[in-house]
Amino acid sequence: MDQIYDIAIIGSGPAGMSAAVNCYARDKSAVIFEGSDLAKKISWAPEVDNYLGFSNISGEELANKFINHIKDLEVPIIKERVIQLFPMGDKFTITTNNDNYQAKKIILAIGVVQEAKINGEADYIGQGISYCATCDGRLYKGKDVLVISDSNHHEEEANFLADLAENVFYIAKYKDIKQLNDKIEVIDKEIKEIDKKDKMIAEFNDEKLAVDGIFILRESIPPNEIVNGLELNGNYVKVDESFATNVSGVYAAGDCVGSPFQIGKAVGEGQLAALNAIKTIDNNE
Amino acid sequence: MDQIYDIAIIGSGPAGMSAAVNCYARDKSAVIFEGSDLAKKISWAPEVDNYLGFSNISGEELANKFINHIKDLEVPIIKERVIQLFPMGDKFTITTNNDNYQAKKIILAIGVVQEAKINGEADYIGQGISYCATCDGRLYKGKDVLVISDSNHHEEEANFLADLAENVFYIAKYKDIKQLNDKIEVIDKEIKEIDKKDKMIAEFNDEKLAVDGIFILRESIPPNEIVNGLELNGNYVKVDESFATNVSGVYAAGDCVGSPFQIGKAVGEGQLAALNAIKTIDNNE
Repeated sequence: MDQIYDIAIIGSGPAGMSAAVNCYARDKSAVIFEGSDLAKKISWAPEVDNYLGFSNISGEELANKFINHIKDLEVPIIKERVIQLFPMGDKFTITTNNDNYQAKKIILAIGVVQEAKINGEADYIGQGISYCATCDGRLYKGKDVLVISDSNHHEEEANFLADLAENVFYIAKYKDIKQLNDKIEVIDKEIKEIDKKDKMIAEFNDEKLAVDGIFILRESIPPNEIVNGLELNGNYVKVDESFATNVSGVYAAGDCVGSPFQIGKAVGEGQLAALNAIKTIDNNE
Repeated sequence: MDQIYDIAIIGSGPAGMSAAVNCYARDKSAVIFEGSDLAKKISWAPEVDNYLGFSNISGEELANKFINHIKDLEVPIIKERVIQLFPMGDKFTITTNNDNYQAKKIILAIGVVQEAKINGEADYIGQGISYCATCDGRLYKGKDVLVISDSNHHEEEANFLADLAENVFYIAKYKDIKQLNDKIEVIDKEIKEIDKKDKMIAEFNDEKLAVDGIFILRESIPPNEIVNGLELNGNYVKVDESFATNVSGVYAAGDCVGSPFQIGKAVGEGQLAALNAIKTIDNNE
């Protein structure tokens, strides 16, 4: 918690990485937070031919070029999932699923949040629904919890809960469960709705499950849940022409600010967000 | 004059080249017009470290990567200087120093016009001042002309004038004159002002020169002289968020729309201008 980074970048797609290389070019310290694989979405593309400088390259190769650039500059990468950002005077505290960090400015480069919310989810956030097992797990010691997860990156968090809770139920919205604790009971059903009576109620097509808490672990957390009061424009983060959001000190770039979802656009926007954020640091704003 | 390109791109910096690769990715025909060297400004940079994917690369190497990408896609490059664009119904005629071409949409990626006008220049455009020797040269058969040039790329045009005109005077605003016709008289003086009496008067510190016509040949022609009625924002081309200018069918991207003058920004903007122009073609706008 000692180091205060100049700029914390949330996300490791082309916007986030472009922001990082531009921070280093201007001698600012940057850190990338990425709970999943680096440049994951690019690496899925069979071929990329419209990012200037690389003709006929596979997504995986291009992702590696990007990652190597970041590694050459020795940009620190913290492989944790950012849960929330809190403005604290002239800096921010960044809470991940594992620890707290500090930075002067924030760049959100979190990509598109593709998954719709579960019916009822929004009504009970912080009142039985949590997005962070390591943050809130201790509240459920000896109790029953349900984990709804869209990636095997979250299995470790579910295992953490299994050590604390009495019963852990697990719904995997993905195919390849890898390393779940034997104590965890996997439920192969689709959740329809979340309700709350005395307990939290998960409703499936044909039955209901009552638990004390529900953990929803997603690769991408909705941006306005990461930053309190963040203004959106539909599903996208609203930014002005300097890629500043309505929250002072918080910038956003790439797919999360709008379409088209393209590497060149994201690289350009990440650069602009970084240069504008740096300007405010240099002006002591 | 038979082929109608989907998109004509004026300029071969990162914005223009990014626009071109994006046209090809969407199966649209594009052509690049460049009267000077390809990607010239980038190739001057000793080192570029903030364009994502290439760490620690020289400007020259990066320029070559960009040029190779364009060549791999077989984007046609017309090495002529665009003098003016005329909207003709649903397409544009592009007049260069050598020929006419046609395209459905235009992307201006002409970089920053760095050179200030000469005092008096704006008052006599088309009335003794011309920007194109091959277009207007014949008006000066057997007469006296002055050529003011900022690059040895224009020497060929001056030589063309020397074949027609009685006397050709030449002011080089650059160092290395390469291939000027012996008949041309080089004047090693700085021009202070242009005036018009019976003849055009070029005023130097200590003397005046009277000629019939003055040709001002610059690497970059001011954008609102290329496109009639183009709205500017200071020195920059004014664009909306889709990188469209106020002239229907004309887009602009890169340094010519504003700072910061950065490769990533230009690549992103070139991509967006191309994708938006393509959208209007697909919608038959």
